Amino acid sequence: MSEKQKVHLYIISDSVGGTASTIGRATMAQFPEVEFQLSAYPFVRDKNKLLKILKHAANDDAIVVHTLVTSELQEVAQAFCQEQNIFCLDPLHPIICEVEQRTSSEHLQKPGAQHQLDQKYFDRIEAIEFAVKYDDGLDPRGFLEADIVILGISRTSKTPLSMFLANQNYKVANLPIIPESHIPEQLWQVDPKKIVGLTNDVQLINEIRRERMIQYGMSPETPYSNIGRIEEELAFSNDLYEKLGCLVINVSKKSIEETAAIIVNTLNLK
Amino acid sequence: MSEKQKVHLYIISDSVGGTASTIGRATMAQFPEVEFQLSAYPFVRDKNKLLKILKHAANDDAIVVHTLVTSELQEVAQAFCQEQNIFCLDPLHPIICEVEQRTSSEHLQKPGAQHQLDQKYFDRIEAIEFAVKYDDGLDPRGFLEADIVILGISRTSKTPLSMFLANQNYKVANLPIIPESHIPEQLWQVDPKKIVGLTNDVQLINEIRRERMIQYGMSPETPYSNIGRIEEELAFSNDLYEKLGCLVINVSKKSIEETAAIIVNTLNLK
Repeated sequence: MSEKQKVHLYIISDSVGGTASTIGRATMAQFPEVEFQLSAYPFVRDKNKLLKILKHAANDDAIVVHTLVTSELQEVAQAFCQEQNIFCLDPLHPIICEVEQRTSSEHLQKPGAQHQLDQKYFDRIEAIEFAVKYDDGLDPRGFLEADIVILGISRTSKTPLSMFLANQNYKVANLPIIPESHIPEQLWQVDPKKIVGLTNDVQLINEIRRERMIQYGMSPETPYSNIGRIEEELAFSNDLYEKLGCLVINVSKKSIEETAAIIVNTLNLK
Repeated sequence: MSEKQKVHLYIISDSVGGTASTIGRATMAQFPEVEFQLSAYPFVRDKNKLLKILKHAANDDAIVVHTLVTSELQEVAQAFCQEQNIFCLDPLHPIICEVEQRTSSEHLQKPGAQHQLDQKYFDRIEAIEFAVKYDDGLDPRGFLEADIVILGISRTSKTPLSMFLANQNYKVANLPIIPESHIPEQLWQVDPKKIVGLTNDVQLINEIRRERMIQYGMSPETPYSNIGRIEEELAFSNDLYEKLGCLVINVSKKSIEETAAIIVNTLNLK
């Protein structure tokens, strides 16, 4: 067949560029056949710098996604892109205009306004530190303070899931489930509505654990990666989840974003 | 003055809703005077469920942001919103159309395509586990394997910054800098281009540490929160950063997102 088609994406922001990058990545994911090149330009707050980047974009025949919030830079970008026939998307513009119209408020025109260091921000920092402190059952006292307690056998992605939820301001503690190890008594004091038990498919855990052993320079055939052993661990954990009466999620075909969204929805967290 | 104006935002997605939420939050941040109510509806993949949500949106006179990627649901949403006069933003639509036109590819119409469990995804999981493992100088061997080594005295947000960068696929290790403690020899073997030294303002650290002591039920006046002590720690760390020849960032007025963006840009990481 013909060679892969190419698209150059320019992500321009007056702050860190998270919003524009998100749009860019979601678009890229819809076109696995297209070869994208992504160039990110954060902290663009000066007209000349912006024009220089836009000239490069014109040379590259790029698609521009920008989230500039000051009227001055917005107008510069719009005028230049129109003149040079650059495809330019400003995903915030229509919704900001609509809110202005409805509320007779004017928007701040303040770059990075969502990154202000307010109480909510410091709560998030604290939630992340909490999740690290109470990762991997390090201290069972964390269960009583947590918004969410995550349980699961090895390789059910407890740690990344905890960090992802912490970044959404939830205080998360997690505990690895091992048949031989003692289940901390604090767990029985936690409201089951705050507990999530993770499971996974035997075959998938087997593959991941074998892979891990190879990475460690060991033979893939260990008790850790043994199918019978994994089945035993899963049976033990499922039994525990049933006794606790908690939400159970099979993570085998889910990303941490998907699992996190299910948790936040099902536990009916704010 | 008059009471706060209210706007109801509906975030509808066929997957976790990250893209639409990002747009919603960036908009809200531009209007501190407006009282927003945000309702999120992830995993909407069925026509009837969608129509039910849109009817509620009409009742609430809401602004709808959706990122539905299947043509069927897109058309349902568009037709209903037009008929009912609901303001409806689909931020992905224009850029997806543009890519389709340029490449003669069709978009996947696959909800949550960016959450596929590919190698990059598993690398990210690994990066997060790496950051937790090598948080707080727990094991100096991590420095040699890391993409980024973060240094800083207590309360310069090393841990949340590490987790944020890990979520962008970077392998990060961090080390608390304490004048009395031994600097691991591995640090001198790391390419200084991979090292970031964090500093903060004396007054701000003093406030944060006093606050922390109060939270711990202690008097705010401790050696930990003493101005002289903090100055000593900062002088020691600045001296170390100079010897290492590393990037230095003062985090006092920056969010972790901003600090992370500076690091990724300055260290010229892919």
